[in-house]
Amino acid sequence: MNVDINKTKNFVKAIFTSLGLSNRYAEMSIEVILQAELTGVLTHGLAKLPFYVMRYKNKSENISPKIKIMNNHTNNILLDGDNASGLIVGPEALKICIRSAKEKGIAAVAVKNSGHFGCGNYYSWKFAEENLIGIVMTNSAPLMAPYGGKEREIGTNPITVAIPANHENPIILDMASSIAAYGKIQVAAIVNEKIPFTWANNKDGMVTDNPTEALNGTLQPLGGYKGYGLAVIVDALTSLLSHGEFGKNISSVEELSENSSEKISHFMLGIDPSTFYDIGDFLSYVDSYVKYIKNSPKAEGNDEIFLPGEIEFNKYHQNIEQGLTIRNETKAILLQIANDLGLNFDDYASLEELISNAY
Amino acid sequence: MNVDINKTKNFVKAIFTSLGLSNRYAEMSIEVILQAELTGVLTHGLAKLPFYVMRYKNKSENISPKIKIMNNHTNNILLDGDNASGLIVGPEALKICIRSAKEKGIAAVAVKNSGHFGCGNYYSWKFAEENLIGIVMTNSAPLMAPYGGKEREIGTNPITVAIPANHENPIILDMASSIAAYGKIQVAAIVNEKIPFTWANNKDGMVTDNPTEALNGTLQPLGGYKGYGLAVIVDALTSLLSHGEFGKNISSVEELSENSSEKISHFMLGIDPSTFYDIGDFLSYVDSYVKYIKNSPKAEGNDEIFLPGEIEFNKYHQNIEQGLTIRNETKAILLQIANDLGLNFDDYASLEELISNAY
Repeated sequence: MNVDINKTKNFVKAIFTSLGLSNRYAEMSIEVILQAELTGVLTHGLAKLPFYVMRYKNKSENISPKIKIMNNHTNNILLDGDNASGLIVGPEALKICIRSAKEKGIAAVAVKNSGHFGCGNYYSWKFAEENLIGIVMTNSAPLMAPYGGKEREIGTNPITVAIPANHENPIILDMASSIAAYGKIQVAAIVNEKIPFTWANNKDGMVTDNPTEALNGTLQPLGGYKGYGLAVIVDALTSLLSHGEFGKNISSVEELSENSSEKISHFMLGIDPSTFYDIGDFLSYVDSYVKYIKNSPKAEGNDEIFLPGEIEFNKYHQNIEQGLTIRNETKAILLQIANDLGLNFDDYASLEELISNAY
Repeated sequence: MNVDINKTKNFVKAIFTSLGLSNRYAEMSIEVILQAELTGVLTHGLAKLPFYVMRYKNKSENISPKIKIMNNHTNNILLDGDNASGLIVGPEALKICIRSAKEKGIAAVAVKNSGHFGCGNYYSWKFAEENLIGIVMTNSAPLMAPYGGKEREIGTNPITVAIPANHENPIILDMASSIAAYGKIQVAAIVNEKIPFTWANNKDGMVTDNPTEALNGTLQPLGGYKGYGLAVIVDALTSLLSHGEFGKNISSVEELSENSSEKISHFMLGIDPSTFYDIGDFLSYVDSYVKYIKNSPKAEGNDEIFLPGEIEFNKYHQNIEQGLTIRNETKAILLQIANDLGLNFDDYASLEELISNAY
């Protein structure tokens, strides 16, 4: 037996409201976290709760922000997140972008003074659900060096893109500008395993297979100067277009102190394909492309070719059908938070299940 | 002594007009080719002339196209290139996109029935010159397999992005979705040198260091599934949004016969940053970001950190100041074309120079 998803939502909602969040903001935040958990992006799911809890506990996150539009344009919107959590500012920006894109055919939203906005595919799925093409970017605390540099100057700056389809799943790209995720190197350091030379550089900017050296160094950008270039463009569209902070002015999780804001910036673009030609024809044409790719001859050892985002859709549907199964690490995290906040377990039927069903 | 750039333009213009192109279209085309040559993107410069000449000689390129807007929307424009050369359709689409972005703050143009549009940075430079952010994509003849596949199903689908600056050079990303360029593998095959295992797969989808096997196989996408994902998104924004052809319906240069059209699609997006906040402040903020990156501590063995596109700017200014120097291979190509078309050398003062100054 697995965990009931609605009960899990209620439990996490209780965590957020006990920290002072309104019901509405708590519900918005848990939607993003659950999306990560359900699609298997576990680094941005329940396991990330301690980060958000820490931010709310030390009152460094604005719990009643006035998220404001700072300019006056029909299609292009500049948003100030008022130093609220990215789990609130991100979805608010998304709503504005989707509404404007549907009304105007195209809309761009640049957002400053936000925080880590969670799982990228949450945003692109929403665009696709509205039959919109969506492009979403966010900057992040520096973990990569510029190509030829050696210090952490730019974030892994992820990009997610949504292409809606008809009967097929939407095409959902969701990728960082680095080759490997920081979390993978942390795991390698804990289990004392070497990492590939292509993942990270040491603090002198030289490649390393030693995870501990890597953790003091930088992540390698995807394809060298190309991934570096992508990360720079993400910085430009997020922080430069919003006049937000960039690079070293964005604090890493470890550096965030009581009074420091994350100061993360986002960029969202929505395009309504129905402004180009009949939406039914467009969605069917995407279907035919998806079939073309799926039916490609396979390389030896491959049974199936996946479209971008397809594995996450499969994981999602599996979780929805069979219920969510959480890891032992996540169970421990939830227990710790519940303890810490003095939450009464019995009030949340889900917790017992969460715990008994962890693996 | 080097080659005079204006004379070179005149000579290449003569080649195009002798093939039936109007003065205006010939001038548009040579602008794109010269931009490639001047910025050091030599695969898309004068060395690509035989391709365009072949296309015009066998009358497979429409020399008097009716490039038409196919929809009715203020910001989003669907363009049919009427099977003209990409060197004509690309710049025409660009003009429309720039004009609309300046008028409306944001504009997207999807283009079908075009051809190879030359050097990507030509397009992004033009956006930057107008103080616009620009994103340009094009699909291309299939050279990559989907991740886990083995046949050529998708193009190397390049992306170019422009971020205008104030005193600094604009930031110009211009990258393909593959790790290596096909041309590099062709060179390795000619000189009989092994290639890195990361560049290409053989026809069974297995990595290879043999360039001849690679030429019968596929190029590896940048960072595996990430580059594959980028290429899919480029296909979607170009061919799906324009209802143009995709994948194997786009003929490679070798396959193009007398009556076949290239059927390449493009996507262009222009955003006016002045709609977000004061343009002077924006451009200065980009300058400050450029300085931040340039001043990053260097890794051992690196004297300088380059912004995306900076090396091409340096090359361009060097060529403008010192005159263009062309390679012996390019000289041979120009001689061959001139011979072939029965052009009278003496009419083009530049040719003699071109030839005497080749290296």
